[in-house]
Amino acid sequence: MAARGTIDGLYAEVSQFYAEQMQALDAGKFAAYAETFTDDATFSHTPGREPARTRAGILQDLLAVNERFADDPQQRRHMFTMMNLDPQSDGTIRSTVYALVLTTRPGAGPELVRTCVVHDVLARVDGALLNRARRVELDGLD
Amino acid sequence: MAARGTIDGLYAEVSQFYAEQMQALDAGKFAAYAETFTDDATFSHTPGREPARTRAGILQDLLAVNERFADDPQQRRHMFTMMNLDPQSDGTIRSTVYALVLTTRPGAGPELVRTCVVHDVLARVDGALLNRARRVELDGLD
Amino acid sequence: MAARGTIDGLYAEVSQFYAEQMQALDAGKFAAYAETFTDDATFSHTPGREPARTRAGILQDLLAVNERFADDPQQRRHMFTMMNLDPQSDGTIRSTVYALVLTTRPGAGPELVRTCVVHDVLARVDGALLNRARRVELDGLD
Repeated sequence: MAARGTIDGLYAEVSQFYAEQMQALDAGKFAAYAETFTDDATFSHTPGREPARTRAGILQDLLAVNERFADDPQQRRHMFTMMNLDPQSDGTIRSTVYALVLTTRPGAGPELVRTCVVHDVLARVDGALLNRARRVELDGLD
Repeated sequence: MAARGTIDGLYAEVSQFYAEQMQALDAGKFAAYAETFTDDATFSHTPGREPARTRAGILQDLLAVNERFADDPQQRRHMFTMMNLDPQSDGTIRSTVYALVLTTRPGAGPELVRTCVVHDVLARVDGALLNRARRVELDGLD
Repeated sequence: MAARGTIDGLYAEVSQFYAEQMQALDAGKFAAYAETFTDDATFSHTPGREPARTRAGILQDLLAVNERFADDPQQRRHMFTMMNLDPQSDGTIRSTVYALVLTTRPGAGPELVRTCVVHDVLARVDGALLNRARRVELDGLD
């Protein structure tokens, strides 16, 4: 893993952060994914469901969500594009980015799962970027 | 909106420009989208149809195209990847970038609409990047 | 083509490298694509098949693969996202990046072909980045 903050400027740093974060998620490395959030982070990914709170709560939530796939093995891929960064005066960064989610089951071709807009607040903790808040807005909800 | 030109270097600046531009379009903010073009811009998005000319003409064209969707609500997403920049000696930037267009209707999953290659000429006006020319090459035409 | 290494920092440079490389491939410019590899490169794109070796071998392999499409014209598009760079102490760069492959046949809409993870080793030769090794991991294999 490259030292964060050293590759280029902010745009590259956040791109690299997301690549590491989402490759960890898609590889089932849920603890590594949870570690990309601050201790006090909130993560809202499903409408009508309370956001997961704290890094430990996010990990627990991820493991619960993942149990749904226990009998249906598949390789999910989260592809982020159109990253729109809005640095704030308090040092945090608002990021609004598109996510395309695809999945592939063994022996089959890829399927589209959904498109989303990810609304993040990123904060710098001990020099490294972490997610302080993530809210996923799903396309296609009635 | 982050001040353009200040995030990092050119590659980051154009990436940020596209993210703001296309998120505006997908949000139906047609005036904001039209404002990312120069006053004298041309925009060619449909073969066999005259390019839209001038910022006002581009806005009018967008509103006309959008009327087709009045009875068929859907969330379109334009996702740009593989951005290839070619800065010119006159200060403009030629950009050749892939676009993946998806759409999601209420209650349904996403559908692929098309893949395109977007050919842009970007110009700097009062310090900010604007689209001076855009030509969209659609894949799959006979 | 912009001079490589001059646009911004490393993240931008590799992004630009991939855009030029994969746009060349999708345009059927196989010689230009092969020239993005080092003389001694290896390219492994199909499980159970020996990797192509050397730039000349990669070109030969590409031409052979492309013959399959002789009777089935289509426009393929390779879209890279989530680029994860890991610069090594020997000056090479390990890059792990998602690829979404789509194809469009004349008169039809786009189809998903597959998602992959591309594992690259990039090396700097006379100042420019080249692919020293590429291994494509395809999703969905049994």
